[in-house]
Amino acid sequence: MTKKLHSIELRVSFGDCDPAGIAFYPNFYSWFDRTFHDWLWTFGGHDALCRRVGAIGMGLMDASARFFRPVKNGDRLTISLAVEEWQSRALKLSYEVRVGEALMATGRETRGLFVQTENGMIAGTLDQIRELTDRNDA
Amino acid sequence: MTKKLHSIELRVSFGDCDPAGIAFYPNFYSWFDRTFHDWLWTFGGHDALCRRVGAIGMGLMDASARFFRPVKNGDRLTISLAVEEWQSRALKLSYEVRVGEALMATGRETRGLFVQTENGMIAGTLDQIRELTDRNDA
Amino acid sequence: MTKKLHSIELRVSFGDCDPAGIAFYPNFYSWFDRTFHDWLWTFGGHDALCRRVGAIGMGLMDASARFFRPVKNGDRLTISLAVEEWQSRALKLSYEVRVGEALMATGRETRGLFVQTENGMIAGTLDQIRELTDRNDA
Amino acid sequence: MTKKLHSIELRVSFGDCDPAGIAFYPNFYSWFDRTFHDWLWTFGGHDALCRRVGAIGMGLMDASARFFRPVKNGDRLTISLAVEEWQSRALKLSYEVRVGEALMATGRETRGLFVQTENGMIAGTLDQIRELTDRNDA
Repeated sequence: MTKKLHSIELRVSFGDCDPAGIAFYPNFYSWFDRTFHDWLWTFGGHDALCRRVGAIGMGLMDASARFFRPVKNGDRLTISLAVEEWQSRALKLSYEVRVGEALMATGRETRGLFVQTENGMIAGTLDQIRELTDRNDA
Repeated sequence: MTKKLHSIELRVSFGDCDPAGIAFYPNFYSWFDRTFHDWLWTFGGHDALCRRVGAIGMGLMDASARFFRPVKNGDRLTISLAVEEWQSRALKLSYEVRVGEALMATGRETRGLFVQTENGMIAGTLDQIRELTDRNDA
Repeated sequence: MTKKLHSIELRVSFGDCDPAGIAFYPNFYSWFDRTFHDWLWTFGGHDALCRRVGAIGMGLMDASARFFRPVKNGDRLTISLAVEEWQSRALKLSYEVRVGEALMATGRETRGLFVQTENGMIAGTLDQIRELTDRNDA
Repeated sequence: MTKKLHSIELRVSFGDCDPAGIAFYPNFYSWFDRTFHDWLWTFGGHDALCRRVGAIGMGLMDASARFFRPVKNGDRLTISLAVEEWQSRALKLSYEVRVGEALMATGRETRGLFVQTENGMIAGTLDQIRELTDRNDA
């Protein structure tokens, strides 16, 4: 199984929920993104990493989520991140959202390194980012 | 090809964008959801439809998106919705996000009808919702 | 000085920030609201409290904030809440947002108890809510 | 009375609303900000204006709102912006949120020009921005 690299904890608040009384679903992606960026702070943060490799950001190529149980106001979430695969120009990540042991949702992201060139934005190689974030990804 | 049922227009604002200067990706799902709910207003709106069929909401089972080009502050988006498939207990929707003719992102949602029962929340049958929204889905 | 009742801690994330690289200002109000609701969980949570007193919510009559220093991606915020005054039909709250000792922003909210009546929504009396939340507001 | 400079229209969506079924209040500030930035697009947009005057953003010094009536899912809002006062280093703006003729909420913002200097961020003079946005502020 894929190794969990990092996790954050977060309490769902009233304002995260919709009129049906459950967490508004785009928030799950914000929580994935929050977990990813919190992980990057272990290595100086997104902006410092991107500056070191001459990129403007580690942006999304695709993202998906599956929702298993309704997440409610007050739920204490643990959101965990695992690296599925480092490809040359794509980083595959997976996420789990749990309340205690119960699995509420899962997610996947594919991220690329956005590099500005004379011919517009391209996906740069991820080798350097992989090295810079390697120390707890063994 | 799947028929487009409904679309909305929306201008990306400063606050929709992140420090990389492009739209923060969870917003795309908010825009999908906004398009879906705008479509439901054609039939009295989400809450009225759910009340008629005894449900508490038409919530998400899964959702995904692919991002092709960076969406920027000031971009005028057209977000269009198509029904891919009515299943007994799942509605498959697809979305396109365009700036003019350029395809910026696509998305998919699977929605179910959340019904509260003595044994917790279950996915109800969608037959009635399908009938109630049928008039421009021919 | 007004007694601080409750505080939460929160790390500012990439997605909380705008293209100028600082926290998008409406987020401060989300953080105030999050702190308020986290406080209410000490007493069973907003929904349970409202049910007990026959109200639909403790909503906003007005809110304001002053921003002293830019809050940035990665900042670790402490957001604290104090009750300024219990009026018959209005609760006056104040907030402070700090990074370490540095005061980044302050806020104020006036909240009322929204009660649905035959003649529409009215502001109910807050006496019962005051009693129910009294134990750490001495 | 202060002259209204600019307005936008926007339909409140399901995801803008909270479990009490009304618009989550931080969204009002997002709508103010959206109206302000939409106004700036008349003059090339926030980023182009800031680049011309050597600033990193037109950020908030304070903001407030008063809420008169609950705004609900599906409401069609008109949000209008007026300049209250150009001060040397502060721009005072006011906002109105209406559904048809009914006034739902009002707001105020004080914005400054954030300029990066050797000694940190300072509030620059607004004279140039005032000139650049003058043509429909007569």
